[in-house]
Amino acid sequence: MRQPFPFSAIVGQDEMKLAMILTAVDPSIGGVLVFGDRGTGKSTAVRALAALLPEITAVEGCPVNSARPADCPEWAGVTSKRTHSIPTPVVDLPLGASEDRVTGALDIERALVDGQKAFQPGLLARANRGYLYIDEVNLLEDHIVDLLLDVAQSGENVVEREGLSIRHAARFVLVGSGNPEEGELRPQLLDRFGLSVDVASPADIAQRVEVLRRREAFENDTAAFMLRWQAEDATIRDQILRARAALKTLRPDEAALSDVAELCMALGSDGVRGELALLKAARAHAAWRDDTAITRTHIRAAAPLALRHRLRRDPLDDAGSGARVRRVIDSVLA
Amino acid sequence: MRQPFPFSAIVGQDEMKLAMILTAVDPSIGGVLVFGDRGTGKSTAVRALAALLPEITAVEGCPVNSARPADCPEWAGVTSKRTHSIPTPVVDLPLGASEDRVTGALDIERALVDGQKAFQPGLLARANRGYLYIDEVNLLEDHIVDLLLDVAQSGENVVEREGLSIRHAARFVLVGSGNPEEGELRPQLLDRFGLSVDVASPADIAQRVEVLRRREAFENDTAAFMLRWQAEDATIRDQILRARAALKTLRPDEAALSDVAELCMALGSDGVRGELALLKAARAHAAWRDDTAITRTHIRAAAPLALRHRLRRDPLDDAGSGARVRRVIDSVLA
Amino acid sequence: MRQPFPFSAIVGQDEMKLAMILTAVDPSIGGVLVFGDRGTGKSTAVRALAALLPEITAVEGCPVNSARPADCPEWAGVTSKRTHSIPTPVVDLPLGASEDRVTGALDIERALVDGQKAFQPGLLARANRGYLYIDEVNLLEDHIVDLLLDVAQSGENVVEREGLSIRHAARFVLVGSGNPEEGELRPQLLDRFGLSVDVASPADIAQRVEVLRRREAFENDTAAFMLRWQAEDATIRDQILRARAALKTLRPDEAALSDVAELCMALGSDGVRGELALLKAARAHAAWRDDTAITRTHIRAAAPLALRHRLRRDPLDDAGSGARVRRVIDSVLA
Amino acid sequence: MRQPFPFSAIVGQDEMKLAMILTAVDPSIGGVLVFGDRGTGKSTAVRALAALLPEITAVEGCPVNSARPADCPEWAGVTSKRTHSIPTPVVDLPLGASEDRVTGALDIERALVDGQKAFQPGLLARANRGYLYIDEVNLLEDHIVDLLLDVAQSGENVVEREGLSIRHAARFVLVGSGNPEEGELRPQLLDRFGLSVDVASPADIAQRVEVLRRREAFENDTAAFMLRWQAEDATIRDQILRARAALKTLRPDEAALSDVAELCMALGSDGVRGELALLKAARAHAAWRDDTAITRTHIRAAAPLALRHRLRRDPLDDAGSGARVRRVIDSVLA
Amino acid sequence: MRQPFPFSAIVGQDEMKLAMILTAVDPSIGGVLVFGDRGTGKSTAVRALAALLPEITAVEGCPVNSARPADCPEWAGVTSKRTHSIPTPVVDLPLGASEDRVTGALDIERALVDGQKAFQPGLLARANRGYLYIDEVNLLEDHIVDLLLDVAQSGENVVEREGLSIRHAARFVLVGSGNPEEGELRPQLLDRFGLSVDVASPADIAQRVEVLRRREAFENDTAAFMLRWQAEDATIRDQILRARAALKTLRPDEAALSDVAELCMALGSDGVRGELALLKAARAHAAWRDDTAITRTHIRAAAPLALRHRLRRDPLDDAGSGARVRRVIDSVLA
Amino acid sequence: MRQPFPFSAIVGQDEMKLAMILTAVDPSIGGVLVFGDRGTGKSTAVRALAALLPEITAVEGCPVNSARPADCPEWAGVTSKRTHSIPTPVVDLPLGASEDRVTGALDIERALVDGQKAFQPGLLARANRGYLYIDEVNLLEDHIVDLLLDVAQSGENVVEREGLSIRHAARFVLVGSGNPEEGELRPQLLDRFGLSVDVASPADIAQRVEVLRRREAFENDTAAFMLRWQAEDATIRDQILRARAALKTLRPDEAALSDVAELCMALGSDGVRGELALLKAARAHAAWRDDTAITRTHIRAAAPLALRHRLRRDPLDDAGSGARVRRVIDSVLA
Repeated sequence: MRQPFPFSAIVGQDEMKLAMILTAVDPSIGGVLVFGDRGTGKSTAVRALAALLPEITAVEGCPVNSARPADCPEWAGVTSKRTHSIPTPVVDLPLGASEDRVTGALDIERALVDGQKAFQPGLLARANRGYLYIDEVNLLEDHIVDLLLDVAQSGENVVEREGLSIRHAARFVLVGSGNPEEGELRPQLLDRFGLSVDVASPADIAQRVEVLRRREAFENDTAAFMLRWQAEDATIRDQILRARAALKTLRPDEAALSDVAELCMALGSDGVRGELALLKAARAHAAWRDDTAITRTHIRAAAPLALRHRLRRDPLDDAGSGARVRRVIDSVLA
Repeated sequence: MRQPFPFSAIVGQDEMKLAMILTAVDPSIGGVLVFGDRGTGKSTAVRALAALLPEITAVEGCPVNSARPADCPEWAGVTSKRTHSIPTPVVDLPLGASEDRVTGALDIERALVDGQKAFQPGLLARANRGYLYIDEVNLLEDHIVDLLLDVAQSGENVVEREGLSIRHAARFVLVGSGNPEEGELRPQLLDRFGLSVDVASPADIAQRVEVLRRREAFENDTAAFMLRWQAEDATIRDQILRARAALKTLRPDEAALSDVAELCMALGSDGVRGELALLKAARAHAAWRDDTAITRTHIRAAAPLALRHRLRRDPLDDAGSGARVRRVIDSVLA
Repeated sequence: MRQPFPFSAIVGQDEMKLAMILTAVDPSIGGVLVFGDRGTGKSTAVRALAALLPEITAVEGCPVNSARPADCPEWAGVTSKRTHSIPTPVVDLPLGASEDRVTGALDIERALVDGQKAFQPGLLARANRGYLYIDEVNLLEDHIVDLLLDVAQSGENVVEREGLSIRHAARFVLVGSGNPEEGELRPQLLDRFGLSVDVASPADIAQRVEVLRRREAFENDTAAFMLRWQAEDATIRDQILRARAALKTLRPDEAALSDVAELCMALGSDGVRGELALLKAARAHAAWRDDTAITRTHIRAAAPLALRHRLRRDPLDDAGSGARVRRVIDSVLA
Repeated sequence: MRQPFPFSAIVGQDEMKLAMILTAVDPSIGGVLVFGDRGTGKSTAVRALAALLPEITAVEGCPVNSARPADCPEWAGVTSKRTHSIPTPVVDLPLGASEDRVTGALDIERALVDGQKAFQPGLLARANRGYLYIDEVNLLEDHIVDLLLDVAQSGENVVEREGLSIRHAARFVLVGSGNPEEGELRPQLLDRFGLSVDVASPADIAQRVEVLRRREAFENDTAAFMLRWQAEDATIRDQILRARAALKTLRPDEAALSDVAELCMALGSDGVRGELALLKAARAHAAWRDDTAITRTHIRAAAPLALRHRLRRDPLDDAGSGARVRRVIDSVLA
Repeated sequence: MRQPFPFSAIVGQDEMKLAMILTAVDPSIGGVLVFGDRGTGKSTAVRALAALLPEITAVEGCPVNSARPADCPEWAGVTSKRTHSIPTPVVDLPLGASEDRVTGALDIERALVDGQKAFQPGLLARANRGYLYIDEVNLLEDHIVDLLLDVAQSGENVVEREGLSIRHAARFVLVGSGNPEEGELRPQLLDRFGLSVDVASPADIAQRVEVLRRREAFENDTAAFMLRWQAEDATIRDQILRARAALKTLRPDEAALSDVAELCMALGSDGVRGELALLKAARAHAAWRDDTAITRTHIRAAAPLALRHRLRRDPLDDAGSGARVRRVIDSVLA
Repeated sequence: MRQPFPFSAIVGQDEMKLAMILTAVDPSIGGVLVFGDRGTGKSTAVRALAALLPEITAVEGCPVNSARPADCPEWAGVTSKRTHSIPTPVVDLPLGASEDRVTGALDIERALVDGQKAFQPGLLARANRGYLYIDEVNLLEDHIVDLLLDVAQSGENVVEREGLSIRHAARFVLVGSGNPEEGELRPQLLDRFGLSVDVASPADIAQRVEVLRRREAFENDTAAFMLRWQAEDATIRDQILRARAALKTLRPDEAALSDVAELCMALGSDGVRGELALLKAARAHAAWRDDTAITRTHIRAAAPLALRHRLRRDPLDDAGSGARVRRVIDSVLA
């Protein structure tokens, strides 16, 4: 396991960092889609965020990282009652992963060798209570993306095949990256991601030197570098925990509901998923900012994240969907 | 199992709700196809309807949810004589499901491990006495759709392969959703769905705010929300049960038969399936409305549901098939 | 098993009914191809005809429905000597059926579990002495169609694979339906069907109302409806049995042979299969009509059935092959 | 086994009958390709010829029909020393046959069940000393055609796979039929067939009536019909046997060699295979005609059979390759 | 095993015969690619050459034809110490051969039946010390061609899969034939063949008659024909053996190296493989001619063989690559 | 195992040799992509470099070539404590290699035969501490390239499938060759290679003669040739070892960081990977040159290697990406 880069040492990329923080505050917002060029630190950011979050307490040997022995699935046959602290899991979904590998499957080897029917848990089990990261999600087969989004939404993985009838907790935030030039997700799937962000290499030379200086320093003496950024990471962690606690107390008023609905309608976004994601992201933003009410400031900040990937393509408007969202925000929330 | 949204709290979408209610009154009408944009609550509606219906009594451990021990299939080896109440089943057919998984298959694992020939029931078994929901039915392989429609129509799943000769009850209402922009069903398959509806996001801001307010309230305090809509759901449930009882007493008169035939002929709909579906839907509508005869009112209401998906495409008439049905109704039933 | 609709209650569709009756009188005519729109009662008609025919006597437990214990195939290990009456079998060939499922195959499960080499009979075994119905035969793979036509013609299913060397009787009438708009059969395969018919929805409102009235009555009170049509069905059954008996006594004279050859030549139909099918169909028609000689009347009636699907397509003549057959009949048999 | 039609009762089709007779006289000429419309009696002719040939003496239970017990392959474990007479084998190669089924393969079932390594012979074993008939050879996969031609040429089937090292005699005449409109064989494969013929439905009404009359008579009373043609078939059989004996005594003189080479060169036929096939076919023709030397008469008769399928296509000459062969014969052998 | 045609009796085809002789003198030149029409005797020539070479001494039962018991691979479990003389092996690679069949693989059958892990040698084992002939190499899958060229170059077959770690000698000359009209080899693969030749049917009538006369004589009385050409074959054999011995004493001088490099450069041939092949072929030619130095005569003779297939296609020069090589030779070696 | 050609005897190809030396000095630079014509010695160079490096000390029987018994993976069951010296491993990845063969997999054979669950290591295990060479990497499937780059970067192979949970060290330098005319790598994959070089045949006759002379001498008397170049190889080896030691002491100053960032920005190279690779390659170059600081000289030398393959294609600039890099270097570092 290599040491992740400190979250707070990431230069720029504010929108991506914000989206990740908001889903850390309220995972029910749904997954994050990150569009952008290669090498812009998408994978680095998700690993950094997970490393920044407090460690979780998990039962030893539990394949789904349960907090209490009673929560370990029966099929796992966990006998240990002891717990230990482990980092928030980050699971990579490799390109070309089969459905079996994702959901788990009958353990053929034990069936053949021991004559026993056992469940071989998959990547979804390991991602429980953490993050599932899919590089180049647009290259994945539709039915796998579909399955991942179903599980991410329900928080439970149900496997009913090959004589198995298994279910286990699978609560995680899905983070997918994609290069829109290499194939697109169907609108049906896009709509099921909570937020999306565009990332790009910094266009400013000082910022690029700073990125390079920090990477070089990190690779040259990792321990010293981690120490240097420890305090900044701790600040973010504390603020996330505070925001999580505040979340329950924040309810949208009529004005917020109306603003959200009008925005979505003006943008021609179909269905209620965009509206709900926007509402939740605005609330998480308010909590993150220590504000006590959901205002237009929060809606304005969250709208590009929640709505950009839900727009129909407009062949006559080549300004990009980000610009369209911002223009409509300015007009609706003027 | 997450709590479904209350059926009566669904805002708008009257045609979809009517189609679902009519097939709840008379499941022999056949399945429902729901065309429309993403996020318009198709899956929510079917789950809501099933949750609204009275629970069914089923033998414990019976894989096909039989009401009496004698009805459990022999191959299931059910020994319990006790029954319990379970919600009306709603089974999701995942994208990419294999025929084995749908119909059930030889339990390979028991054959290998125990040397026993056992049947592993599939999704059709679990859907018995309930609903089978297929999201994006237009992306399913034709031979699976064909098989589902065959079983839905006959009410029985017959598996004769791999040394198996199994049959079990599989009575369910098939609900399929589809986005016509992403691939079409062959007319042969369309024709075998009883009813179809088009759904769209509400075009009215007050309605959208209401949708959002209810979803937010539901997510924020589910128990309170369910309590709030309990009475409305009960009213619909009672009315469905009353309509089911009334169904037998309603026979079409000559005028109704003639109206139905003329309508179908004027629309150029092939075959008798459309006429039968229209007749039954009109009858179910009469029963739902507590009316004692099938009149033009009921035919008029049921015709778009029963005929819209059975029209040949007319390249010179871009009004949409819904509009064509309504125009012909106005002229034939003037 | 659902009760089939009575054959005699089918409204119109005279050509399809005639074709089915002729092959019931003389199964050596070969299979019937039914072209036409969805919902025109193709499947209903074949099931109705089979239900109308007298029940067959079959040995209990015999997988090929043999009439006498001595006729049961050795591999079936049938020990019962008792026979019972069963309806004429109608077997559906599902879309996507594999060759194994059609012909039968090694029973892998018994090989693995019991260490025994057993034959698992297929759909061809079950269709013996009855009908094999293929919906949308044009969507079937060519090599399966080829195999079915080979067996239908020889009356025997020979399986020589996987260490098996099995043969069993497989005498059945093949009925295939197809929608010519969705793919075509190769002329090689078309030629091997004995007869073909075109069916369409009735274009007459009174007839459509009658169709609907009878379907509604059938579904509403099946028992009463069956009773109502019992006598008509019995009349047809008796007439088929009488025609079968008369068949042997009917030989074509020179004039009939010459008429048949001239018709086929004028139509440019290749090969002797069309001529033989026409001759036999004319003979069966004579028998069905209680006539004692094969005359131009019978040839005229049988020619469209026997020749329509054997014409080369003529791009300059869009009258349809049915019209071309009739025009040539009028000129040759003037 | 159905009774084949008598060879001598086939009306017309002289070229096809001649080609089959020549390869019966000298099987080393190689296989016959029959191009032509459906229903022109290709399959009937090959079965008829085989039935006309004298029965062969074969060891009981020998999978390759060996004449003497010593010739039975060791792997077959044949213990019987008795022989019996069997008809000349005619084996059909079904569309879609796998390589295993053609060549034979490891008997998986005996390996699994008895733990024994046994060879399951294929269609090539059964065809030994007879005919292998491939309907629609142009639809077969290239590597199977290649394999069949290799075995047909070497007279031996060698299987060296899956731990098997098996060889057995596989001497047969390959007869393939094909419809050139439905796909073509690669020139490489065409060249390896010895002869080819074109067949068509008779264009003469009297002949067609005769065809029909004979088929009808054959089907109506097969025994009587066979008796009627017995003598004619016997005459042909005797003449084939006489020609076979005469073959060794017929050597081409310089003039014959030169005629053959000049013909092939004038036609632009590549390679020596065409020249050898023509030489052998001319010799067989001389033997069949009881002539004592190979003359231009025989070359003239054999040339279309041996060369037609070896011509390169000439896009500027649409006379058909048969016509081109005849024109060149007239000019070279003038 | 059929008797191969005598090498010396092959009429014409001098370039193909020379290429085969040169690789018999120095197999390190690499394989030979033979381009040309069907039936031009490509397969005949390779078999003839192998039959002409002296028999090899091989240990009885050794799967790789080793000369001494100590050289038999350990996995073969050869216990015999006796050797026998066998013809130089010629192995045909069938179209569609799998990688397992080529390289050898785990003997599944012995693993299943005896529970033993054994290696089932493949075609590469049998080709050791001989020839591997691939008809229509351009139809083979790239990765198989790649594998064959790797083994041919290294002289060793290494199989490291499925728990096997096997290596055995596999020294052979690869001869591939191909029809350039039916698909091309990638330049990467072409470059790895040492030599190439074009063959065509003779354009001279006397030569064609001679070809035909010899084939006829060979088929008519093989033994007499072999006797007739025995001495000529022996002369070639002796000369090959003498040339092999002389090879070591022939080293290129600076002039020869420079000629070779200039030729390749003038032709734009990439990489060092062409230069090495040309140098070695020229040396083998000198040895075959009993010359004591490599001169321009030898380079001139070898250059078309070694370079023709290594030229980039020149769309403006349709003279064919053979003509281009000769033109450049004339200019560079003028 | 054939003797590799001496690295120092490779004529020209300075850029390729430099790239290989730099990754030998600092393997963390990442893999090398070699673009170029066939036969330009790509495979020769990687083998030569590996042979030049000092032998490594490895535990006997350890599948991952561990230096100490304690480092052998537990699953390997290595019992020997003895070490031996082995050449630096060079592993070839064959075209068409499966994922199982690359990563290792469950040893099916031992599972079946011994009933034991064992890991069968793959090519990644054998490449540990050495080189993995992929010829024609552009023909490999994307998900395999992806996997190889992941492992190359992390230095660890993790296999979690089929009941296995295996990890082992897999530190190697990936060298891929490709012909850009035959298919391209996706930019995502290109970006993950550290360096790239273009190679071509020498355009100078003297150099070509020298290449040929050395190859001829090497093949003629390998031992003598190796002796001749022994000292040159030793010099390079010593210098690589010295450079490795110096690496830690070289840190980039602000000017170097700024030069690197400005160069990448001016070239429009996305992401931080290019900048890091350039920085490391410049540092390795400084170490190789015995310089004590990273200067513009080193950056200038390393930039084409590190950036050429990371440029977006510019359809208006056909100078080639190498020329563009050099032009920008001249302008930025002027």
